[in-house]
Amino acid sequence: MTLSPAARAAAVAALVNPSSIAIVGASADLAKISGRPLKHLLDRSYAGRILPVNARHAEIAGLRCYATIASLPEAADLAIIAVPARDVAGSIVALGMRGVRAAVIFSSGFGEMGAAGQALEAELVRVAREAGVVMCGPNCLGFINAFDNVYATFSQYADGETGAGAIAFVTQSGAFGTAIAALARQRGLGLGYFINTGNEADLEFSELMSAVIEDPRIKVAAGYLEGVRDGAALIRLAERCRALGKPLVLTKVGRMAAGARAAASHTGALALEDAVFDAVIRQYGVLRARNEEQMLDMLEVLAHDRVAGGNGLGIATQSGGAGVMMADRAEELGLDVPRLGAATRERLAEVMPAFGAAGNPVDVTGQFVARPELLREAVIALMDDARVHIGIVWLQLMTAHVSTLLRIFTEIRDRTSKPLLVCWVAAPAEAIRRLRGEGIIVYPAGERAVEAAAALMRIGRFRQQANAEGRPLAGHRFSPPRAVRAGVQPTVDACGWLRDAGIPIAAAALARDEAQAVALWRRSGAPVALKIESPDITHKTEVGGVLLGLDSAEAIERGFRTLTRRAIDAAPGARIEGVVVQSMATGHLELVVGVKRDPVFGMIVMVGFGGILVEVLRDVAFRRAPFAPEEALRMLGELRMAALLDGVRGRPGVDRVAIARMLATLSEWAAAAEPVLIELDLNPVLVGPDGPVAVDCVMVLDESGEPARQSAVRDP
Amino acid sequence: MTLSPAARAAAVAALVNPSSIAIVGASADLAKISGRPLKHLLDRSYAGRILPVNARHAEIAGLRCYATIASLPEAADLAIIAVPARDVAGSIVALGMRGVRAAVIFSSGFGEMGAAGQALEAELVRVAREAGVVMCGPNCLGFINAFDNVYATFSQYADGETGAGAIAFVTQSGAFGTAIAALARQRGLGLGYFINTGNEADLEFSELMSAVIEDPRIKVAAGYLEGVRDGAALIRLAERCRALGKPLVLTKVGRMAAGARAAASHTGALALEDAVFDAVIRQYGVLRARNEEQMLDMLEVLAHDRVAGGNGLGIATQSGGAGVMMADRAEELGLDVPRLGAATRERLAEVMPAFGAAGNPVDVTGQFVARPELLREAVIALMDDARVHIGIVWLQLMTAHVSTLLRIFTEIRDRTSKPLLVCWVAAPAEAIRRLRGEGIIVYPAGERAVEAAAALMRIGRFRQQANAEGRPLAGHRFSPPRAVRAGVQPTVDACGWLRDAGIPIAAAALARDEAQAVALWRRSGAPVALKIESPDITHKTEVGGVLLGLDSAEAIERGFRTLTRRAIDAAPGARIEGVVVQSMATGHLELVVGVKRDPVFGMIVMVGFGGILVEVLRDVAFRRAPFAPEEALRMLGELRMAALLDGVRGRPGVDRVAIARMLATLSEWAAAAEPVLIELDLNPVLVGPDGPVAVDCVMVLDESGEPARQSAVRDP
Repeated sequence: MTLSPAARAAAVAALVNPSSIAIVGASADLAKISGRPLKHLLDRSYAGRILPVNARHAEIAGLRCYATIASLPEAADLAIIAVPARDVAGSIVALGMRGVRAAVIFSSGFGEMGAAGQALEAELVRVAREAGVVMCGPNCLGFINAFDNVYATFSQYADGETGAGAIAFVTQSGAFGTAIAALARQRGLGLGYFINTGNEADLEFSELMSAVIEDPRIKVAAGYLEGVRDGAALIRLAERCRALGKPLVLTKVGRMAAGARAAASHTGALALEDAVFDAVIRQYGVLRARNEEQMLDMLEVLAHDRVAGGNGLGIATQSGGAGVMMADRAEELGLDVPRLGAATRERLAEVMPAFGAAGNPVDVTGQFVARPELLREAVIALMDDARVHIGIVWLQLMTAHVSTLLRIFTEIRDRTSKPLLVCWVAAPAEAIRRLRGEGIIVYPAGERAVEAAAALMRIGRFRQQANAEGRPLAGHRFSPPRAVRAGVQPTVDACGWLRDAGIPIAAAALARDEAQAVALWRRSGAPVALKIESPDITHKTEVGGVLLGLDSAEAIERGFRTLTRRAIDAAPGARIEGVVVQSMATGHLELVVGVKRDPVFGMIVMVGFGGILVEVLRDVAFRRAPFAPEEALRMLGELRMAALLDGVRGRPGVDRVAIARMLATLSEWAAAAEPVLIELDLNPVLVGPDGPVAVDCVMVLDESGEPARQSAVRDP
Repeated sequence: MTLSPAARAAAVAALVNPSSIAIVGASADLAKISGRPLKHLLDRSYAGRILPVNARHAEIAGLRCYATIASLPEAADLAIIAVPARDVAGSIVALGMRGVRAAVIFSSGFGEMGAAGQALEAELVRVAREAGVVMCGPNCLGFINAFDNVYATFSQYADGETGAGAIAFVTQSGAFGTAIAALARQRGLGLGYFINTGNEADLEFSELMSAVIEDPRIKVAAGYLEGVRDGAALIRLAERCRALGKPLVLTKVGRMAAGARAAASHTGALALEDAVFDAVIRQYGVLRARNEEQMLDMLEVLAHDRVAGGNGLGIATQSGGAGVMMADRAEELGLDVPRLGAATRERLAEVMPAFGAAGNPVDVTGQFVARPELLREAVIALMDDARVHIGIVWLQLMTAHVSTLLRIFTEIRDRTSKPLLVCWVAAPAEAIRRLRGEGIIVYPAGERAVEAAAALMRIGRFRQQANAEGRPLAGHRFSPPRAVRAGVQPTVDACGWLRDAGIPIAAAALARDEAQAVALWRRSGAPVALKIESPDITHKTEVGGVLLGLDSAEAIERGFRTLTRRAIDAAPGARIEGVVVQSMATGHLELVVGVKRDPVFGMIVMVGFGGILVEVLRDVAFRRAPFAPEEALRMLGELRMAALLDGVRGRPGVDRVAIARMLATLSEWAAAAEPVLIELDLNPVLVGPDGPVAVDCVMVLDESGEPARQSAVRDP
């Protein structure tokens, strides 16, 4: 029996919060991998039923032990499997027969162990599907649900305190994930869930995380990834997190070419193009942390309740230089360090020492040691300013003043509803501990506090966007194109489909001979471009197959002959279908627009500046289709050369909204075309005063169409 | 008496390592600012003589106290001044009369306190010059020479242990500098010197650092800067550090526009353009750390003796993902993570578990817990590979295995002469302490270890460069141009000076009337460009003052009239001197080259790509003049669009060496022209198969020339 989607979801929900746990292969030696879960469950007083399975014992640690899975007294919500690899599939079959629907498999010796292991894993997946058992693992450390004392793990992390907190952490890596969990503990950050997904033979990162974010005790989700197989599931997760108002923070290794290669060889996951991954997760409101330290820095602030109402950062310091450093970083990250209002400046002038600075950053100097109310009143004035949405207070050492400062920060916190971050460099350990005990967010370095503030700002912005912007209608407006043939489609058909969808594209028609070409030129009443048309020639310019601005019968006739001869010379045997006659478009700016099918995320739309810029700078932006025009505007804003859109050197600016509309429409068409579209290149798209116009189009479909169907000649 | 340079140097040397210290205004309350130095000096058993000066006491803390400076029994090497601001100048005068040559001034109330304070500071400087006393401060925390127990400070940092180590740390900021020093202590990094320069009324950062780097006990210099006044002194410091083989690491705030503004208002220092600062310090072999954490990460590895023989990084981990993350970062920073040699791979295959990865990164997995020799032998094999120059070992937690691992790392360290960095995430505190005790470098995060390795690599590269490359001959080859007039120079003169210097520039001559223009065109025998010539029109294109490719007498005559008319229309009253007739240059690539006088560093040469790229991308590189062609090549390599130089889209590449030669020659000419040159723009410089040719030139000199002297007409 294969589980229905609803039954599968129920099985996963029960897996992470089981009422009863069977331990298959439970050892009486509680220090062994197969004994440690039992020890943890007992030590932490797990409230459910624990059912060890081991034929060699009648009892382990005072619990009745069952000889076989079949003899279990109930269908446990979860089975922990810690038996040799060769015995795992058999255990899964037995569990399925006993009605157990979920297992976490510690055993290694599967996909990570070469071809033989991969075959064993494939067989395991087949067996589990048939048995109706969902699996976490194999080759994983298991997981912890700290709220309910579920310690289905042998991780070193479980050896220490694991206070249940508002963070759900799911990791593909056991070793790195354990290290991150231990670092979270060092900071006093509680992980409500710690899950290692291991080989992900069945349950992947996204499905497990999707189960635990529904827990109302969780406020924020954090993931460590080495690869992604199911992009759609990751996006559903991101959308659900956004709907729940729970930030999702991801760290993914493999940012650079070398790293991606190493990751692919390490995990066997698809080598994801990092730029696409990065763009897509941001599109869906996910925060990316570049490494474990930044992830934890973000979690520290996101696990609190206060949200940022904007991007204004107020900074108070006892060192002008630290203020400068933080202002630098804020500017880099899109935070504003606003000039304070007149009322704020007046309030500050009243409390500040003469040699302080009442701007933003506010430099209160070290004088607050003598006059604690100086610090308190200055920071409260700063936080009260309407342009300030997040506050950071920077200080250092002050070993002798911990209690005073603790009191001041608590008072400030209580007198504002905005997020307040304390940055205390070289702080006494006691100060950090006591501040965190009071629920005050504290960082050890100024730039890290600013980065956390930026994360808070971005989460606030994602929420505003989600509320303010309509959702694109995936595929509702369009039907997928019907392929004329497999591979590159005839230009006239491709252009026609896009034009019908509302995408601005230069009119094109096919001429089979010189006379037809001249007739088309006459009908257009303006200069035209001629382009060779052949299913065997994808890149027309490479064979000299394009002539521009022809405007006489003689030029058209000569052009037709030239293109045909060049094509035959360059590609002997190519089937020449004729010459496309196309209206000339104008525009002083050249973009490239494209769609490609990403193996993980599906239809990806790309836009960039054309010509040498795209080749040398790779100044391109990506989004997953479909998306709304507002998202397309952000896409344009991400281009490093975006200022070109607004006009430089006296050249006029172009209409960003018109380009955004074109991109959004294309994205909806591409989403509808997903079943057949492999690749689409609109290069160049010329942009002038009248908006964007695509002047060339290469569309590749993967569905065989009718054999050699004749395309309709369209008016240019 | 003003001190001679030699006497001044001797005074500064004595300041940082005095045989006797007078404390002017010494308090009997050793907790006060004016009492704390005495306490520290006594507590740490300073071996020199301590001479308190205070008329109200006969004795302080068992030491004889002197009523006046005049009554001091000797001319102390150093005086600490802790008296009210209004009394400081008087003390300095008295010290000078008593023969004391150096003072450190704690007192505040000077330049940091508005106009009145600035006046007081200017007066203090005048008095000190006259008295022959060098000053550190005022408004500073003082300094520590931990080797010789000189605690001339009231910094909180001195309250804790300050083990004397190989690092000299000089900071412009008291508060931030104290925090950095405390962080260094937390890591067990000893600061041999800690110096806060305060207002830098006399001694600046560079002069103080220059004194202490001569101490053979110092291996590395670190500075925290908010601004730089004397760029030449900073460069002398950098060159001396390089000559001594002692790395210099600088953190400077004010990287972004907002931060730079804040820094300028905070320090009163010149608002330095960060891109210029950044380029110049790298040019002279300085490492820049973006913040205090990165500075300390660099110091940790630079305070050790091992150097990197190249950029090959070998990585061993127990987590594939951590390896990927480190490989990513390495690639970003220019480190190579090389494929290992066959012999290495064989050695690794012998020791590695089946599910490990014997590539680079080497994934030894967690199995080394059971088999410590696995880790040892794998890492030694890695370090022995000829392509590996630096090694990083990554591990996590391992709380139960600290002693074993300590032994393994010690053995590895002893069996290789290459630098080895341990990255131990979530390490037990004991492990960190014991590793450091063994002299083993340890980091808490993978990316930070890679960044430190990159610093080590860059220091090695700087040394190679310094050994391999000739030094440019500053001003030896050229004499400064003799200005024709103040301001913009006549085009023909400017072009002539540069051509005489060997800088390729299109030939130009001035025509005063149409007939002269036609004659010049005939003599050139090729199409020419016409450009309006007027001392009142700097940007010719903006007034339509340039015509290109004219090749007939009629076109030349008409062009002459057109340009004259346009100039009069656009700039009524402008003095029109005629029209420059210039040879047309060819080249498919357009560069901009310029020289500007930086207020801090003097003559700065800039190169970038021309056209819209320079405006939108600001894709430019800077160097301080003069520099060698090798440096110019690196400059070209820094351009983001550098790939354009090698040809894209079928366009031919250009000769980087020819461009580099032009830039280096220009830099030598600019260095010679420093007394008079304000600005030079060569825009565009066209680059084609025959190398670069400047086709336009605007040169601004600041020296008034002879009145309205006629420039010689040169042949085009």
